[in-house]
Amino acid sequence: MRRILYLGPEGTFTEQAARVLVTRAYPGSAASDSSSDSEAQRTAADVVLEPAVTVQIAMREVASGHAEAVVAPVENSVEGSVPATLDALDAADPMVAVAETVLPVRFTVLATPGLPIDDIRTVATHPHAAAQVRQWLAGHLPAASIVSSTSTAAAALEVLEGRADAAVTAPLAAQRYPLDVVATDVADVRDAVTSFRLMRLPGRMPAPTGADRTAIVVTVDDRVGTLADLLTELAVRGVNLTRIESRPTRDRLGSYRFFLDLDGHLAERRVADALAALRRRCQAVRFLGSFPRADGHDPADPAPPEPVSDAAFAEAESWVQSLLEGSPS
Amino acid sequence: MRRILYLGPEGTFTEQAARVLVTRAYPGSAASDSSSDSEAQRTAADVVLEPAVTVQIAMREVASGHAEAVVAPVENSVEGSVPATLDALDAADPMVAVAETVLPVRFTVLATPGLPIDDIRTVATHPHAAAQVRQWLAGHLPAASIVSSTSTAAAALEVLEGRADAAVTAPLAAQRYPLDVVATDVADVRDAVTSFRLMRLPGRMPAPTGADRTAIVVTVDDRVGTLADLLTELAVRGVNLTRIESRPTRDRLGSYRFFLDLDGHLAERRVADALAALRRRCQAVRFLGSFPRADGHDPADPAPPEPVSDAAFAEAESWVQSLLEGSPS
Repeated sequence: MRRILYLGPEGTFTEQAARVLVTRAYPGSAASDSSSDSEAQRTAADVVLEPAVTVQIAMREVASGHAEAVVAPVENSVEGSVPATLDALDAADPMVAVAETVLPVRFTVLATPGLPIDDIRTVATHPHAAAQVRQWLAGHLPAASIVSSTSTAAAALEVLEGRADAAVTAPLAAQRYPLDVVATDVADVRDAVTSFRLMRLPGRMPAPTGADRTAIVVTVDDRVGTLADLLTELAVRGVNLTRIESRPTRDRLGSYRFFLDLDGHLAERRVADALAALRRRCQAVRFLGSFPRADGHDPADPAPPEPVSDAAFAEAESWVQSLLEGSPS
Repeated sequence: MRRILYLGPEGTFTEQAARVLVTRAYPGSAASDSSSDSEAQRTAADVVLEPAVTVQIAMREVASGHAEAVVAPVENSVEGSVPATLDALDAADPMVAVAETVLPVRFTVLATPGLPIDDIRTVATHPHAAAQVRQWLAGHLPAASIVSSTSTAAAALEVLEGRADAAVTAPLAAQRYPLDVVATDVADVRDAVTSFRLMRLPGRMPAPTGADRTAIVVTVDDRVGTLADLLTELAVRGVNLTRIESRPTRDRLGSYRFFLDLDGHLAERRVADALAALRRRCQAVRFLGSFPRADGHDPADPAPPEPVSDAAFAEAESWVQSLLEGSPS
């Protein structure tokens, strides 16, 4: 029985992402929606999806061998704290991501069964979700006031239990709770997305696909130009940076941490060479995984430019080796 | 009557920060704790502190002239979404920060009056706060289970209304609610901090103090090395970067946004010159304010090195001017 934990509660965007990621990371398994009354969700291949209260708690379960993997949001989440995921990653025993998925931020509005829309007076939801559907509510439910809940799933429960007339939820909640669907695909901003990763203890990493991402966290001295130097090490090797976030270090003794996402896989020479260069320059470099990019391979994506292709690295290295062995240059 | 909005609800770390910031930004006013029964908090100099449901709503009130300023968390908040603050800043009419403050993340534990500590069975708090006091709870209230609430202030209300035995709250909540103080200064990690800023419409900016911070958001093309180029523009001018965070752009059309905090004030030549350089290189640069650093001036802080001092800039500029006028070099 493989136990996969996600940042709970059930019925949220993170559970929705966990179902996608489990299917991807454990082929042959299939996330089942049938047992919506039980806390643990059984899947076809003996994989159990289970909510955890915090990312830290979930990671501790993995470190102690009581669970196999954790699913958590890493960017722009509707619910749950993304900084909390980053801090947990840095504090926990080493864990690496092996898969990612990106969900559009689109909400479903659920209401008390049979209640006419014009009679909706209160709408429960998480404050972050409320901020993202404010215009929609003003246009479609102008008479309703917003009630805060601890998650979009808790909001659906408020409706079930008669404490609110409607709830703004993740699409998954519509399958879970016997409520009327008032609207789907609700979002003031059309193209907001949230990304999630499945993380487990280091071991076999996913094979390169040609469209991969590598995540690291580096700790550096706090002096002018340190970060420019690091990023130049990436740029000269044709390694594209897709995300960066500084986080205060715990000790504040003149050092800084940066979480970086790079295009490419550790098995590619330009990425491996860049990581070795960072290792020489930084107080610490921690590898957080190489895995297929959620958006997959775009045929328009250029191959790595010639000077940083694997073949160019191999040729240059054997040329230097031949010089060392006394060959003419 | 000056209306200052903060990310609510009342009794949280953000209200605590708002009281500090208002006193700093509006000298002569003094935040009063006396009217804890009213939603609006009157202060000595006709400044009213009022909670807002989201940062976006607060900023809209300022843009429309119905409020004067907004206080919101910008880094590592216990409650409220810091990404939400960044996105709101970018979406709103231009607003600039004029003051910042940093609060240590230390909690107060409140309980039902007269209840013996050994009888505490349920502890309410915000999930982010729960994650930061887990070890303390395991050591001091091992029999208690955690109940999620939408904020640390809502947790105190749960206790007042008899739905929980104790609450983990911001220190300010102890002054607001008639509950027993079980413990103060509670935190698993000793040196975690949260930073907050007071923002208003652009106008007169605070005078340079010698220990200032400048905040900007830049939008750049998504290509290898763009960010390294930008940071080199800062480094060559001796401008230290204290924070960086990438945020997805709304349109996703091959561009990226970065929120940057720099040491120094726009009135210093090296900072102004660096911003002009970024303006030449970026699709867009938005100024988010120059204001005194919360940690103040450290006598150990070095002055800007000679090549980037204001005097060096002025001398070099008049030298170039003299060449243009035909003087010998």
